[in-house]
Amino acid sequence: MNIEVCYTPQAYPLFHKDDSIVVVIDIFRATSAIVTAFYNGVSKMIPVATVAEAKEYQSNGYLAAAERDGEIIEGFELGNSPFGYMNNKVKGKTIAISTTNGTQAIEASRKASKIVIGSFLNLDVLCDYLLTQKKDVILVCAGWKNKFNLEDTLFAGAVVSKLSADSDCTITCDSAIASQHLYNIAKDDLYEFLSHSSHRNRLTKLDLERDIQYCLTVNQCPVIPIMEGKYLVKL
Amino acid sequence: MNIEVCYTPQAYPLFHKDDSIVVVIDIFRATSAIVTAFYNGVSKMIPVATVAEAKEYQSNGYLAAAERDGEIIEGFELGNSPFGYMNNKVKGKTIAISTTNGTQAIEASRKASKIVIGSFLNLDVLCDYLLTQKKDVILVCAGWKNKFNLEDTLFAGAVVSKLSADSDCTITCDSAIASQHLYNIAKDDLYEFLSHSSHRNRLTKLDLERDIQYCLTVNQCPVIPIMEGKYLVKL
Repeated sequence: MNIEVCYTPQAYPLFHKDDSIVVVIDIFRATSAIVTAFYNGVSKMIPVATVAEAKEYQSNGYLAAAERDGEIIEGFELGNSPFGYMNNKVKGKTIAISTTNGTQAIEASRKASKIVIGSFLNLDVLCDYLLTQKKDVILVCAGWKNKFNLEDTLFAGAVVSKLSADSDCTITCDSAIASQHLYNIAKDDLYEFLSHSSHRNRLTKLDLERDIQYCLTVNQCPVIPIMEGKYLVKL
Repeated sequence: MNIEVCYTPQAYPLFHKDDSIVVVIDIFRATSAIVTAFYNGVSKMIPVATVAEAKEYQSNGYLAAAERDGEIIEGFELGNSPFGYMNNKVKGKTIAISTTNGTQAIEASRKASKIVIGSFLNLDVLCDYLLTQKKDVILVCAGWKNKFNLEDTLFAGAVVSKLSADSDCTITCDSAIASQHLYNIAKDDLYEFLSHSSHRNRLTKLDLERDIQYCLTVNQCPVIPIMEGKYLVKL
């Protein structure tokens, strides 16, 4: 098993291999919200790149989520706050979702043979699953508008740390090595480490401190969302 | 002064601002070779993206350097080993040069108002210069074929560390923060830190250990190459 880290959706074509498993990562907050949604009984999700597509699903009777730059787009029920997915209204529902970065990362890696969703909330169960698969893994960070970000990198580093403890894993990719180093510095206090990061500051301005704390909580939601056709479903 | 780090030439358009100074970084080995060349009396260099362009300059009587995947291309006098630029044959000459990554990074940032060349060999003199300019700085890592690499990131981190000690500097870019963290881990022994990196291993296989050691030497060549039109000249 070779583990690579792709820091932005833009770079994905450089990493693509037909047989690799892709883990899509958008810690603040899309993949944390998606994992939370499935943990709270959402049936399916349909990640879409554009707000127009989310709107179309909405007009066809679906629940729909759309977020840009940290805020829910007017006219939508949900954005990418995990707390929006913790109530009974979402249980058993299929939800279309479009976000600034997370769903763009899913879109970029659409050609992958298998796409699963990663967040601190499902860290251990995800790593256990990846180890059983015995395939190469590409950790695809959503970043921020195709720029590198710290929180997705820390999560990639956490996965690299866990997988590389297994003797079947090889790490030759510089971004995987860097991610692991950064995670090692940060792991005792992820929240404090991110205090100067661009996105934590962006969310703090939007009064989303509670979301940040939640998204950095480990193993709160032990489920693995996986792409099946156009749907995300619970593995 | 805002300092940003762009990890790959591919990402440069996301960082471009008309008034910023770009520092192009390709530690192993193009920018180390270019700095060495000017320190050893080369008059001008002409960085070109393709081997064909280098060939054309060569057929017009110029000295020409061309490297791909770590090796000199057949028919060229020089590659990107700094040691090739330490003899009297290059003194006073104009040299066309095309390399796997470094000259691609120059090409990608061609629209910048000012482009200078960075390497550990000219670290302090470069940082002193940047501080006098009072402009935003974009550190452009050449990476490896548009993937992130560790050695360019460490140098970016070294520059961020030096510049951020000055009170006029602000660092809000996540890749700048990450680079500085990585440099802080690595700075006491850059060579050892890079022992598992992809490119050090690539060069070791090519028996280029001496080049690696040299390229990690700090302040050996206190000169700043700068783009003027199509030429690199000594500032």
